[in-house]
Amino acid sequence: MSSTLGIIRVLTHPDQHFIEEHGRLIYQAYGLNSVSRCIPDQPRGIFDDASEALAVPKIIALGQQLQSQCDVLFLSCAADPGLAELRKAVNIPVVSAGSAAASIAAMLQRPVAVMGIGAEAPRPFKHYLGESVIYARPEGITNTTDLLTSQGRQSALACADQLYRQGIEVIAFSCTGFSTIGLADAINQQLGQIAIDAVQSAGLFASQLGR
Amino acid sequence: MSSTLGIIRVLTHPDQHFIEEHGRLIYQAYGLNSVSRCIPDQPRGIFDDASEALAVPKIIALGQQLQSQCDVLFLSCAADPGLAELRKAVNIPVVSAGSAAASIAAMLQRPVAVMGIGAEAPRPFKHYLGESVIYARPEGITNTTDLLTSQGRQSALACADQLYRQGIEVIAFSCTGFSTIGLADAINQQLGQIAIDAVQSAGLFASQLGR
Repeated sequence: MSSTLGIIRVLTHPDQHFIEEHGRLIYQAYGLNSVSRCIPDQPRGIFDDASEALAVPKIIALGQQLQSQCDVLFLSCAADPGLAELRKAVNIPVVSAGSAAASIAAMLQRPVAVMGIGAEAPRPFKHYLGESVIYARPEGITNTTDLLTSQGRQSALACADQLYRQGIEVIAFSCTGFSTIGLADAINQQLGQIAIDAVQSAGLFASQLGR
Repeated sequence: MSSTLGIIRVLTHPDQHFIEEHGRLIYQAYGLNSVSRCIPDQPRGIFDDASEALAVPKIIALGQQLQSQCDVLFLSCAADPGLAELRKAVNIPVVSAGSAAASIAAMLQRPVAVMGIGAEAPRPFKHYLGESVIYARPEGITNTTDLLTSQGRQSALACADQLYRQGIEVIAFSCTGFSTIGLADAINQQLGQIAIDAVQSAGLFASQLGR
């Protein structure tokens, strides 16, 4: 089981420690080594259709570069930008944060909601959980850095708590920022409920593809 | 997404319809096509260390044969017999019923039990969920054909119900016979609880490896 995971970050960032954050989480959970790379010239990442259209060819080019040194690729974004094209363009398996989390949540077949920081549930979540899947965004959170404050974590936990109180049994995260703050663990320990983390889900899939 | 799944059945059976049962379940759930093959000369399958030792080289040989016509292999047995060796022997991903179900159950991090028809939880379940994971076997069930009767289904559902009443929140199946009778759906609909089906779990992993 000595697979190497090639992690594609869909934003440009100067700090390699930041870039490798998802890789560290997957190593902690599944013992997989990884190489993390950013797409170039998109410091604001993907935030609308135009920025996604701009990113997809870069994602594919990065995947093609990474495949020589990796066994599995991980497209680390809950919106799965360019996933279908990337899978066609490389000859190793590709897991993606959105599809991984959404497909696990769908398999559980219990009342489900999606929690993220965007305006609505990203496409893969609507695909797997239905167009009208319940979607919630923590109050006061508009980007992932807001989550890093104590207030941001409280807001995320309160948002989840409210969903469970309404009868939701499974929450799927459509934001990898929740992975960084360990929100699924907090939900499990403090609320006694099930949350599906997008980075952990992709790590789980990747962990089953090893040699 | 036109992957073909190569399904390895770890017993010998003359009826191709029976052999293709897991493939049909995966097609229904994930739209994946499959080719199902049995190992030769083991009509009783794997039931002890000696029969497992006899089966492993056959499993590897079958995997090597299937890899030319498949994109992913599925070792359809909750005990994952020969999984590590098979992964080394082929150059396509291998998913297995035991590891798939057990690893999903582990990720959910809630009070968990394993339900099967053998004497104890198979190795992959102990690996992912702990050596002392709670294990239960439905009363009166000693082989998968017992499950096909109305009484057998009732017994399986009653066994699950008892586990949930004791505080278990997630049941992972260590018997693919529960897949055939749709027990996870029955648990979901009749008991309102979460059960992790071994064939569905492997199908889920395989569905994320497509082109």
